Amino acid sequence: MGYSVAILGATGAVGSEFLKILHERNFPISRLKLLSSARSAGKKIRFGDEEIIVEEANEKSFEGVELVLASAGSSVSKKFAPIAVACGAIVIDNTSAFRMDEDVPLVIPEINPQDIKKHKGIIANPNCSTIIMNVPVWPLHKVNPIRRIVVSTYQAVSGAGAAAMAELQEAAKAYLENRPFTPTVLPHPPAFNVFSHDSEIGEDGYNLEERKMIRETRKIFHTQDILITATCVRVPVMRAHCEAINLQFTRPISEHEVREILSKAPGVRIVDDRERNYFPMPIDASGRDDILVGRIRQDVSQPGGVGIDMFVSGDQLRKGAALNAIQIAELL
Amino acid sequence: MGYSVAILGATGAVGSEFLKILHERNFPISRLKLLSSARSAGKKIRFGDEEIIVEEANEKSFEGVELVLASAGSSVSKKFAPIAVACGAIVIDNTSAFRMDEDVPLVIPEINPQDIKKHKGIIANPNCSTIIMNVPVWPLHKVNPIRRIVVSTYQAVSGAGAAAMAELQEAAKAYLENRPFTPTVLPHPPAFNVFSHDSEIGEDGYNLEERKMIRETRKIFHTQDILITATCVRVPVMRAHCEAINLQFTRPISEHEVREILSKAPGVRIVDDRERNYFPMPIDASGRDDILVGRIRQDVSQPGGVGIDMFVSGDQLRKGAALNAIQIAELL
Repeated sequence: MGYSVAILGATGAVGSEFLKILHERNFPISRLKLLSSARSAGKKIRFGDEEIIVEEANEKSFEGVELVLASAGSSVSKKFAPIAVACGAIVIDNTSAFRMDEDVPLVIPEINPQDIKKHKGIIANPNCSTIIMNVPVWPLHKVNPIRRIVVSTYQAVSGAGAAAMAELQEAAKAYLENRPFTPTVLPHPPAFNVFSHDSEIGEDGYNLEERKMIRETRKIFHTQDILITATCVRVPVMRAHCEAINLQFTRPISEHEVREILSKAPGVRIVDDRERNYFPMPIDASGRDDILVGRIRQDVSQPGGVGIDMFVSGDQLRKGAALNAIQIAELL
Repeated sequence: MGYSVAILGATGAVGSEFLKILHERNFPISRLKLLSSARSAGKKIRFGDEEIIVEEANEKSFEGVELVLASAGSSVSKKFAPIAVACGAIVIDNTSAFRMDEDVPLVIPEINPQDIKKHKGIIANPNCSTIIMNVPVWPLHKVNPIRRIVVSTYQAVSGAGAAAMAELQEAAKAYLENRPFTPTVLPHPPAFNVFSHDSEIGEDGYNLEERKMIRETRKIFHTQDILITATCVRVPVMRAHCEAINLQFTRPISEHEVREILSKAPGVRIVDDRERNYFPMPIDASGRDDILVGRIRQDVSQPGGVGIDMFVSGDQLRKGAALNAIQIAELL
């Protein structure tokens, strides 16, 4: 007993994570199809005790499929999601293809599970940086509406895919061996370096990742009133993002209140040990479901006690992508 | 013809940079003494064509010395700086020992060179993150006073010394070879990781590095009115810091105006190519004197056009430490 599930982009970084999490959580599956581009078709992938051969995605791939988990890039989703929906499937799409469509719910299960009901076949999974910021920000916003967010990200290369993760390792090796290295996946040398997020820059100077954080947060929170500025940056880390988040609330709020609220918030774990200087780190967030939150403190630059600073870390491939999508599927 | 100079902490990361820059800039030296702790005494260090033997610093080391460049830690400066001053030397101190003393000028030559005149023997070099932020922030502040700064740092390990730089390389090597690695210099595994700055946390939740950025900026700018919050974070980078800086001005300011002002500012180089997605990076800032500034854009979260976001990168060992100190010496 279970659902007929297809994974679109099964050989990618998020695809592998889909498989791992479906297995871990005993998701009820009657049949599992692994779909990819022509390049990866024919590969064998282990799922539990089975070995499944990856098939090239085509217009007939979705017949009889009930649930599609898609993470093969925006253009692939644009092409195949409508076909899958026409075949009767529900598509949970991890790309940015449909996120801002009015007809498509954009869902973080801890925040707006009720939006799922309005779906017309496609449900969008938000951008990874958006999810990692908002799982801890939403419970605070519910109690004391947030007026403005200033966020700076420290993003892992996993967001650029499995090839970028391999490239960071290659680049680090070359650096340590004093060999020259020219990246081919990432736009700049990733090892022992930091660079502005590798997405297109708009006329206003914001890159696409930053615009996603701003627009998606407003859609998920159901408010256009929240002011947000973001600076998105890549760091030489494999798979967990960090974010320095500065919040301005409507009313005064103490760091004690913030800790109280976050200690009960779903999907959040407080890691905030000032004495041991132990705070959220990518090596601790990697492979975990919770968003780690620490450095919680009253912002001394905001008069009237309305400001809070905090620092978070979350696994980009899990809660930032695959886990959030599978939580949506479980709600369905 | 020249000055009798002593370097206190000659074998450290900043010490090596002092030697390199003194040589590059042809600083007039009649006699050069290299001082260190007992552990490093006896080492031979090349300076130009000479080889100089490092001596253990003691109370008699400063007789006949006219200029001391100190970067051997706060407690070493506290002990030896007054002795050197009593011997008639001027001490330019790169540690935090005297920075907030009322009698000690805290100087960034591009900002407050006039403060040097008030010295009573000791002149303090600001914290590296403070210098890197303020070289580009000051010329903007002069034209349109800044009310508030929200800054998040991406700090290289060089700030923790030469041993930390070696440790990052060792840690990266161990990671790539799948060997366990326990750091002994830095408090957390530095490779493929990010962690909150390794300085003491105060009761208000800010760490010492953050408090330095706040207090030192106010002293250098000669104003207590500027509101600042900072989140200081270490990233796996060798020797150049980055900072995401969010500014609130008194009056509206356009990104065009900011670019105009910064294109003429001393010590600043604009690196802001949106089409090529090319912005300030540690690999470009390393070994350079200028602070690189890019991602200059109007902050969409501040009504009335009073907000600007930007991203900077500067060499922590050069402008963040040794170069700034030698520029002070040149002014003297």
